[in-house]
Amino acid sequence: MGIKLYGVGQSIYTRKVLACLYEKEVEFEFVDVDVFKSKEHKNEFFLARNPFGQVPVMEIDGDITLFESRAMTQFLAHNFMDQGTQFIFPHDKKKMAEMAPWIEVESTKFSPIAAKLGFECLFKSMYGLGSEIDEAVVSQLEEELCKLLDVYEVRLSKCKYLSGDDFGLADLHHMPEFENIMKIGSKKIVEARPNVSKWVATILARPSWAKVLAMQN
Amino acid sequence: MGIKLYGVGQSIYTRKVLACLYEKEVEFEFVDVDVFKSKEHKNEFFLARNPFGQVPVMEIDGDITLFESRAMTQFLAHNFMDQGTQFIFPHDKKKMAEMAPWIEVESTKFSPIAAKLGFECLFKSMYGLGSEIDEAVVSQLEEELCKLLDVYEVRLSKCKYLSGDDFGLADLHHMPEFENIMKIGSKKIVEARPNVSKWVATILARPSWAKVLAMQN
Repeated sequence: MGIKLYGVGQSIYTRKVLACLYEKEVEFEFVDVDVFKSKEHKNEFFLARNPFGQVPVMEIDGDITLFESRAMTQFLAHNFMDQGTQFIFPHDKKKMAEMAPWIEVESTKFSPIAAKLGFECLFKSMYGLGSEIDEAVVSQLEEELCKLLDVYEVRLSKCKYLSGDDFGLADLHHMPEFENIMKIGSKKIVEARPNVSKWVATILARPSWAKVLAMQN
Repeated sequence: MGIKLYGVGQSIYTRKVLACLYEKEVEFEFVDVDVFKSKEHKNEFFLARNPFGQVPVMEIDGDITLFESRAMTQFLAHNFMDQGTQFIFPHDKKKMAEMAPWIEVESTKFSPIAAKLGFECLFKSMYGLGSEIDEAVVSQLEEELCKLLDVYEVRLSKCKYLSGDDFGLADLHHMPEFENIMKIGSKKIVEARPNVSKWVATILARPSWAKVLAMQN
């Protein structure tokens, strides 16, 4: 399969897919989308591929188009099942049932909080969208993150990964947001929880993640 | 497989799973969880099955436990693939790629808005959590819903369902929130968009949905 990924190197959503491509050892072509100057994600070509005008977008063999990062990682997990890190175990119902809820927890509980924290503390000033960090917003988000990571802490006292004994898509999807959280004051929330702390260090130490970061240089 | 669903009949998340069970023609036992008086979802039995203490929870053959409603519908879709309405097409990459993004759109874009609208206009007073509707909140949510349904309107001008030509999980996951939206003032947003309006009527007219509603009586 010929895979083309349109994205932004620093986008947390683009990075979820990049990490997955490297884990699955899938060759791909990366197309840098200029979302700042020429706003390429809002042009006709891009909107025809993603009606929401957001990165990333994936093209497969020129005739299959995907948008939404987690739809892409699921697609890669299913269609390259036996290549690279295995994420799908079609004959192991119990393993699939253990992994699946944590994929939903990341997308509906973790990412909405973590993405807003990253925006407020890192990207707002970086992209000239405001110079002042809104401390009330940060404080509210950190309170929500604490409650969530308290549940993670218990889970990670019982198994190495959120997905269970093996690294899975649920873990992978957390990498980009934690990369950002560990650069801001909110990293104290991670550091106060030994099991979460160890898990974050483990997933960010994966070779796939080093390759994602190397793309920025 | 012996399936037991612990839930609340009026919960939008419980209803997603109920609709899926009926679509897949899977027999199950329903266990009503008392989340109001005795707060059963926060007791030891329940927290051992879902660390977030939320309904629904599913047990399969007594030894597999699932939480997060969309993890359950995916599990049912995969494990009862050829029974009832088909949601998974493992040999049709293109069809899977067309359906997958809309499942993510529902969980990360639509439901967060629609669930809050339902709470503010319907459940807040119903459950004695406040008598006044916060009009500023409603207005903000309705503005977000309008933008989202503008994209749906274009998508639904090209195919009958968000999932494509056939009813899929992405469509099913929208049913509970739209049941509520059509009972409040925000239904004007649906009615102003002919394709969305037709699609909402089509999905809410499915026999599976009538069975979900019948459980309340």
